[in-house]
Amino acid sequence: MLKETRKQEIVRVAAKLFKKKGFSAVTMRDLAKEMGIKAASLYNHIDSKQAILQEIVIAIAEDFTTGMQSIIASDCSSLEKLEQIIQLHVKIAIENTDGLSALNSDWMHLESKLEYYLKLRQDYESNFRHIIETGIASKEIRTVNPDVLMFSMLSTLRTLYLWIPKKGNVNPKELSASLAQILIKGINI
Amino acid sequence: MLKETRKQEIVRVAAKLFKKKGFSAVTMRDLAKEMGIKAASLYNHIDSKQAILQEIVIAIAEDFTTGMQSIIASDCSSLEKLEQIIQLHVKIAIENTDGLSALNSDWMHLESKLEYYLKLRQDYESNFRHIIETGIASKEIRTVNPDVLMFSMLSTLRTLYLWIPKKGNVNPKELSASLAQILIKGINI
Repeated sequence: MLKETRKQEIVRVAAKLFKKKGFSAVTMRDLAKEMGIKAASLYNHIDSKQAILQEIVIAIAEDFTTGMQSIIASDCSSLEKLEQIIQLHVKIAIENTDGLSALNSDWMHLESKLEYYLKLRQDYESNFRHIIETGIASKEIRTVNPDVLMFSMLSTLRTLYLWIPKKGNVNPKELSASLAQILIKGINI
Repeated sequence: MLKETRKQEIVRVAAKLFKKKGFSAVTMRDLAKEMGIKAASLYNHIDSKQAILQEIVIAIAEDFTTGMQSIIASDCSSLEKLEQIIQLHVKIAIENTDGLSALNSDWMHLESKLEYYLKLRQDYESNFRHIIETGIASKEIRTVNPDVLMFSMLSTLRTLYLWIPKKGNVNPKELSASLAQILIKGINI
């Protein structure tokens, strides 16, 4: 594993603090205290609390965008693409639980990057919807309202970070497989 | 339809304001202004902003509790009970979208009623989990981790209020049927 830079450490500790107290309630002073350094020396690495929030949220949004781009570029069937989307969400939720929490609670506090973030989210949903519509057209996916299906899956996937930590050590492969079964194949025997 | 009491009107308008600006940012003065009455006269009907939050959150939590109690008391199969849970969430999400938004964003601001609210939520989840476990034992439901299944369904059901309003006029029966199909029968053909 590469050694964490000071900036990465700041972002990681900040995400944990934002999760615990909420973005608005955390000060740069709190963050410095948590890291055992002086507030002034934080500013050698990052400009502001807003810049930290941007680092957290935009990095995750871009991870999702990159993941989605490689999924739509693949030759897989629509159902396989949905499985890959599930894997993508599980991977990010496990690797960056605190960051996702900050994203979900605090994205609306983004200032100059808000529009960019919303664009990435909108594009992600468009691609997701397109995969569903293609699957319905090719008779792989049951005929349902594509939006109901998308928001149903996304609700589960976007809140994974909330209940993953409760389960202790999580095996991403097992969780992805279990969710794929529940979300795609249904639960009745 | 019964005429709304002044107190009910206060609670309804407050839920809408909490949704728009967040519980913490709304003052009793804002609420009075929104209703076109004097702040002092609000206090003839309700003691405080905290009391309004309690009215909103506890009423919804008790609706879910009552609904769940009649579901578990019924003779239906486990899958039918899950369908009834879906119907219960759709009904409350459509009837009280603003209230659910306040519940989801602001339940943690409850003071004296916090413990009671958490107890209701915990009992609801226990009953939900029990229905799933019974269904797995009776071979109605696929063998999956009951918690993964419960949180997957609850994530969708608890965030319904977020995307229902986008769809304009919603037919509860159609939406429940569509969700039951997606959540129970799966999406593959």
